[in-house]
Amino acid sequence: MPTVEQARQYYLAADPVHDFQHIQRVLALAERVGREEGADLEVLRAAVLLHDASGAAPGEEVGARATHHEASAEFARGVLAAEGWPEARIEAVLHAIRAHRFRGTAAPRSLEAKILFDCDKLDVLGAIGVARTMAYAALAGQPLTGEPSAQFRATGQKQPGEPHTPYHEFLFKLSRVKDRMYTATARAIAEERHRYLEEYFERLHREVKGEE
Amino acid sequence: MPTVEQARQYYLAADPVHDFQHIQRVLALAERVGREEGADLEVLRAAVLLHDASGAAPGEEVGARATHHEASAEFARGVLAAEGWPEARIEAVLHAIRAHRFRGTAAPRSLEAKILFDCDKLDVLGAIGVARTMAYAALAGQPLTGEPSAQFRATGQKQPGEPHTPYHEFLFKLSRVKDRMYTATARAIAEERHRYLEEYFERLHREVKGEE
Repeated sequence: MPTVEQARQYYLAADPVHDFQHIQRVLALAERVGREEGADLEVLRAAVLLHDASGAAPGEEVGARATHHEASAEFARGVLAAEGWPEARIEAVLHAIRAHRFRGTAAPRSLEAKILFDCDKLDVLGAIGVARTMAYAALAGQPLTGEPSAQFRATGQKQPGEPHTPYHEFLFKLSRVKDRMYTATARAIAEERHRYLEEYFERLHREVKGEE
Repeated sequence: MPTVEQARQYYLAADPVHDFQHIQRVLALAERVGREEGADLEVLRAAVLLHDASGAAPGEEVGARATHHEASAEFARGVLAAEGWPEARIEAVLHAIRAHRFRGTAAPRSLEAKILFDCDKLDVLGAIGVARTMAYAALAGQPLTGEPSAQFRATGQKQPGEPHTPYHEFLFKLSRVKDRMYTATARAIAEERHRYLEEYFERLHREVKGEE
């Protein structure tokens, strides 16, 4: 398994939303969830350290993000084969990496794949979810605040000229993440982080109106 | 006084941390604080709408940000003189604009200047303070998370190679803002927003360690 310091080198070109700090946060969570769920921690740690290693950097070609799970799995095969891992354990790591995408086609089947999926998604909720959503909005040139229209709240469709903001992102996407968890340990963390994130946006919009 | 829609045009080129939404948030707060403190609301509103109108855009020359209060005051003079404001009331607006900088040389003397100063600074605290600090870090290429060293916590001096993060910004700068408020109404809001911001960073760093 690559050490944390070796793995850091794979992520030097990544954007602040998918950088090595993301990997380290997912690793800390996965070790906790993995112990509680009784996972194979060696397979899990290797999968975490390598899951975004290819295709996540902002300079890569358009569309690379959509296939980064496949590219990272191939990259992982090379790293683990060079370390002499047995083929079955390499495949266990690769399955977890291939199945970690939120909109991916392969659903996680093994416990380790479920935990990587869950912990990767937990990093968009809670206080770190606030940080990443605001950072993403700034890099995308979106306004940080703005009231979603009644139409958007009801249908998820914006009115003409309605800008996309972090609150829209929460209502449309982040608010559903808690319902996608595979493991009970991660689901409990997700529900608590979801509550924090929801309260954050409600507070933010009271502040925007000068009420708090 | 320029209407809100007229004022919006002055801020089209601004960055997401100093854009027109910042102006609108400061306006909402200033109207609330101004009413509670008994301020001249016309002078106060004009000062809010014009206080960042010049020199705040990212494309302007280096150093423009440091003198944007003077440039905005000159810009405001032109706008208000064209509307036929009496000289004394123009000067009242210009004093508030000139005195709004945190590191400025002119301290706010009038009630309206104190309220603009306070409400402009309140926008770096609370939930909106989180949003702006994370957006700023992303645009500056700084990591979103990272543990400040014991040395930084004690002295404000980073160790060699220690990156600047939003938590550093909070400990070194944002945590002091509440002690700079001029009006009692703003001070009460600042203390509550400070508590929220402090709890945010404490929670964020428990999450980073996988503890929450």
